[in-house]
Amino acid sequence: MDRKGIIFTNNGFVHSSTVHYPYEERGLQFGDGIYEVVRVYQGKCYLLEEHIDRLFRSANAISLVLPFSKKELMEHFITLLQLNSFTDDGIIYVQITRGSAKRNHIFPKVEPNFYAYVDHYPRPVDFISHGISVITYPDIRWQYCYIKSLNLLPNVLAKQEAAEQQCFDAIFHRDEIITESSAANVFIVKDQSLYTHPATEQILHGCVRNRVLTLARNAQINVIETTFTRKDLLDADEVFLTSSGIEVMPVIQIDGKTVGSGTPGAVSRKLQKLYEQDAQLVTLQGGIS
Amino acid sequence: MDRKGIIFTNNGFVHSSTVHYPYEERGLQFGDGIYEVVRVYQGKCYLLEEHIDRLFRSANAISLVLPFSKKELMEHFITLLQLNSFTDDGIIYVQITRGSAKRNHIFPKVEPNFYAYVDHYPRPVDFISHGISVITYPDIRWQYCYIKSLNLLPNVLAKQEAAEQQCFDAIFHRDEIITESSAANVFIVKDQSLYTHPATEQILHGCVRNRVLTLARNAQINVIETTFTRKDLLDADEVFLTSSGIEVMPVIQIDGKTVGSGTPGAVSRKLQKLYEQDAQLVTLQGGIS
Repeated sequence: MDRKGIIFTNNGFVHSSTVHYPYEERGLQFGDGIYEVVRVYQGKCYLLEEHIDRLFRSANAISLVLPFSKKELMEHFITLLQLNSFTDDGIIYVQITRGSAKRNHIFPKVEPNFYAYVDHYPRPVDFISHGISVITYPDIRWQYCYIKSLNLLPNVLAKQEAAEQQCFDAIFHRDEIITESSAANVFIVKDQSLYTHPATEQILHGCVRNRVLTLARNAQINVIETTFTRKDLLDADEVFLTSSGIEVMPVIQIDGKTVGSGTPGAVSRKLQKLYEQDAQLVTLQGGIS
Repeated sequence: MDRKGIIFTNNGFVHSSTVHYPYEERGLQFGDGIYEVVRVYQGKCYLLEEHIDRLFRSANAISLVLPFSKKELMEHFITLLQLNSFTDDGIIYVQITRGSAKRNHIFPKVEPNFYAYVDHYPRPVDFISHGISVITYPDIRWQYCYIKSLNLLPNVLAKQEAAEQQCFDAIFHRDEIITESSAANVFIVKDQSLYTHPATEQILHGCVRNRVLTLARNAQINVIETTFTRKDLLDADEVFLTSSGIEVMPVIQIDGKTVGSGTPGAVSRKLQKLYEQDAQLVTLQGGIS
């Protein structure tokens, strides 16, 4: 099987080589669409219902009527994995745009375009075990970051700046308040309590974020959903990011400054372990077992 | 000739029916690109150099290296008009994205994709003569609105809301300060002086905006580039929008409230006339002659 052999599209399940977009398309000309990335472990989706719920919330927020029900989409994803005989660790990427039409800001009367593919995506084991370095970056994004839209240019610019500084990611601050990173939610630990930005319009309501909050509360960790500053971030005992791709990812350096002891902290380790149990993963050897 | 017969692309001048994009493309997945819309009157470009300069400024702001020089692009546009035997009123639309690559926020090492087409676009004579109604709308966009990027979802949502209220456009206000509209710059006239938002990072530096400012100054109109509020907008003697598509467009109603006398005012009329002279247009009969 070649990478992403069979793709789910407007035209059903087709070979990837047949999928092309016209140049007059709402995604291509306006970023007028939404997307999701679903984690796949050993061929099975993790937090699938949560991702599909969020996709429908994003669609609703931009008045995009999806051409399938939640249940249908869930079944299509299962079929997608089966048709590709996909039993590996990976992701399903799905995006839906407002369709193909002559350029005009106003919604056209056409059907949405969509595609979903599955791709290999191994767990970033080394980073999870040893932690990552990040930069901070001004949150220049729009006001509705809870919508998982295709308008990702500021995220691209932030992530690129991080890469040029040999860092893994960029953490956004809006007027000194930490919101999230270019592609993940941000948590800090201070005096045994866990802090993260509340689920307002200014951040993505991460599926892994929500699950980690539940796991933390169940483990009697004191959880506080409140805003905190760049100074709080730099003074934290522990910092970690969460997303479907990077799980619970310890941050050990920010803007060149060491976080805590410079190694992943005890609360981060504990949540990594609870995450692995929840996702029914084999515990990583060494670092976090 | 069919609409937009010949298009200028990575592959040279080709027929529009052959232009397709892969589904893994930076424009389609991130809105990672920029664009311009150049006015064409009777087959000739208006303010061409200004638009090309801005395209290069936008590209530079997102670290996108364009695959042509300013002079080359100018020549390509002339060729595009010739190959399409285009002698009508229209627009040239050009967009450049960071290219086709497997999805990853970080810049890929690939060549940009681009296309430019010409399309018919008559002068909106009725609106120019009689004025338009608009709504006001929160400016939910990102912080770098001076970049003419493909991240246009907030503009789309604002314009759609205007259309649903039977209005022509939506004027943005950020914390009560008027910035611009979904696709044009905003001017007000109060006590014979002309006010518009300064050319900061928060607005597009409109080519027509700049030309109108020059025309106004040359005509001894008192021009003040400063911020003004939604209240100032509603209390103005005259309001108009400028863009390549709509020229100098009088606004006669805002959020249901009449502007000034309810008809296009004297300063707007004067600037329309100066614009027509500058663009070597036939003066419209009736309304604005």
